[in-house]
Amino acid sequence: MLAWHWRLAGYGPPLPRDSSGTGRGLSYRDAGVDLDASEVLHGLASRLLAGRREAYTSSIELHGRELVLHVDGVGTKTLVLERLGRLRVAGWDCVVMNTNDVACDAARPVALVDYIAMPRADEHVFREILEGVREAAEATGALLLGGETAILPGLAQGVDVVCTVLALREPGWRGNRVRPGDVLVGLESNGLHANGYSLARRIALERLGGYNVVVDGLDLAEELAKPVRDYTGFLLEAWSRGLLTAAAHITGGAFTKMRRILPQGAAAVMEMPEPPRVFQVLVEAGGVEPSEAYRVWNMGVGLVVATPRDSLDELLSLAKRHGHRAHVLGRVEQAGAAEPRIILDTVYGRITY
Amino acid sequence: MLAWHWRLAGYGPPLPRDSSGTGRGLSYRDAGVDLDASEVLHGLASRLLAGRREAYTSSIELHGRELVLHVDGVGTKTLVLERLGRLRVAGWDCVVMNTNDVACDAARPVALVDYIAMPRADEHVFREILEGVREAAEATGALLLGGETAILPGLAQGVDVVCTVLALREPGWRGNRVRPGDVLVGLESNGLHANGYSLARRIALERLGGYNVVVDGLDLAEELAKPVRDYTGFLLEAWSRGLLTAAAHITGGAFTKMRRILPQGAAAVMEMPEPPRVFQVLVEAGGVEPSEAYRVWNMGVGLVVATPRDSLDELLSLAKRHGHRAHVLGRVEQAGAAEPRIILDTVYGRITY
Repeated sequence: MLAWHWRLAGYGPPLPRDSSGTGRGLSYRDAGVDLDASEVLHGLASRLLAGRREAYTSSIELHGRELVLHVDGVGTKTLVLERLGRLRVAGWDCVVMNTNDVACDAARPVALVDYIAMPRADEHVFREILEGVREAAEATGALLLGGETAILPGLAQGVDVVCTVLALREPGWRGNRVRPGDVLVGLESNGLHANGYSLARRIALERLGGYNVVVDGLDLAEELAKPVRDYTGFLLEAWSRGLLTAAAHITGGAFTKMRRILPQGAAAVMEMPEPPRVFQVLVEAGGVEPSEAYRVWNMGVGLVVATPRDSLDELLSLAKRHGHRAHVLGRVEQAGAAEPRIILDTVYGRITY
Repeated sequence: MLAWHWRLAGYGPPLPRDSSGTGRGLSYRDAGVDLDASEVLHGLASRLLAGRREAYTSSIELHGRELVLHVDGVGTKTLVLERLGRLRVAGWDCVVMNTNDVACDAARPVALVDYIAMPRADEHVFREILEGVREAAEATGALLLGGETAILPGLAQGVDVVCTVLALREPGWRGNRVRPGDVLVGLESNGLHANGYSLARRIALERLGGYNVVVDGLDLAEELAKPVRDYTGFLLEAWSRGLLTAAAHITGGAFTKMRRILPQGAAAVMEMPEPPRVFQVLVEAGGVEPSEAYRVWNMGVGLVVATPRDSLDELLSLAKRHGHRAHVLGRVEQAGAAEPRIILDTVYGRITY
């Protein structure tokens, strides 16, 4: 239950690597993201946090209203988008990653500010990003109150795109209250969203010959430039109609992040759909351990929500009405261990976190 | 009157350069910050902004309360601080730069989130920055609600430290209402604060032999590692006691930023104190045009406030009680031109923006 979260960083212990047909298997650490080190920082930071903590965000009460302040960035996905001339997606993503997070904790976005760091002032790049921010602000109902654009020669090698969202907790929200027996429903993602790009980039550049390649009919550039799917409206309506007991946005840390929403002694047991082709290609080409893949990438499922069994039909039809493809993945079970566990049955076999 | 502001970027037209005894004079553009290009971006961004705009910030009304959301970063000062092992100052600065800004618009900081980007997870660096954030949050009364730490191999070459502050407008604030006749008071800065470091770094590295040098008895490293002075408490008390008609935080754009607080047809006419030694050294060693210096650096004055003549004594004693050294610099005058003008009498002669 931590509001401090880590771009590109998982939470579990490092996994052993094996070799694959395409050379030594790549891990997130190989791609420059050291999970152990990130975990230490995580612990340091969380001790300093104030406010009421929920699964994704913290809030303060101000004159009877609960306000959430939340920050997230697009990370190294911008390096791919810049190369492909698609930085508008970075503007969109930086907003929607935040609004998805706050909506998981039943908070409605009301305002935002952005932060863009660039090595030099580039009008075209800036215009593209801003257009994406504008679109996403409109889609999610947040007002753009300002921003900072930092020209950072010698510090930024590429474009860094970050956003902070102010959100208002829905009145009467009873909080995360998932229980054994609740059904777990997954909503499809739109590609990698904005996580795990350090590893994806390394695989693309070192094993696949770059971003602009077609692998078995899959246009890799198109896949890597897909925008984050916006779950905000669906989540807020589902909370307000009392259909949810918890929601987990699958971002940095991927399915290990579901630990945040589970009570002690519970396990999330899910049968995962076959991952979309892009994930299969990355796993194969990178020789990535499946258990590494499912804690770095969303593997086709961008959001997991928990619902009481008798709300399932209504939830599924609500998802459909919001344009999302939803799948019943499994349920929350009572487990022996004290720490929450995540058990995934995948095409690669069973994975347990 | 723009809430979008630019780290390290001024607003006026580029100035002619001359040569000096120490080689060709350096400008901000030479240091990698192109003012023309930044101005274009500025214009693009400001068209998209929503909310009520004040001199430094924008706000929204939420259930009868006016909320300000504001973002700012430390910029390339972190490159100096990292080299000197003083990154705690970056944590402090990222908060205080924001709280000074919002307090200029009479908003009281209530919460904040930080964003730290690093090329790799470095526990020592992170701990230092976080300690500075914690100190500043405590000093300014804002609760730390969360943060994002992005490990960005290939994107970040150094550490980027950014903060977003949520602030609550003081009830009954009548807004910026400076008038001809108002007295302009300057509060001393503490070194460069966090602006103009791209130019300062270039001068230090190319003309002075690095940061760790002593120039005519001045310890350059000590000067460059000074934290931003915290004007938050002074500003909020001065506003609440009705002593101010406007306040200008001297940051990116330096004294040109005062245009934001002046009405059409007015001029700020100020006699500037002799700049502290560090500025003199940078101007001389860099061959920096004085008019460039006063729009890049604060030149010893970190805050300018306007006060009705009959509130001057009370304002000066309030500043003293808050530990600030204040100087009467001049006053607001009726001028012929439609656009607000800034007229500075400096040790280098008269400068007009």
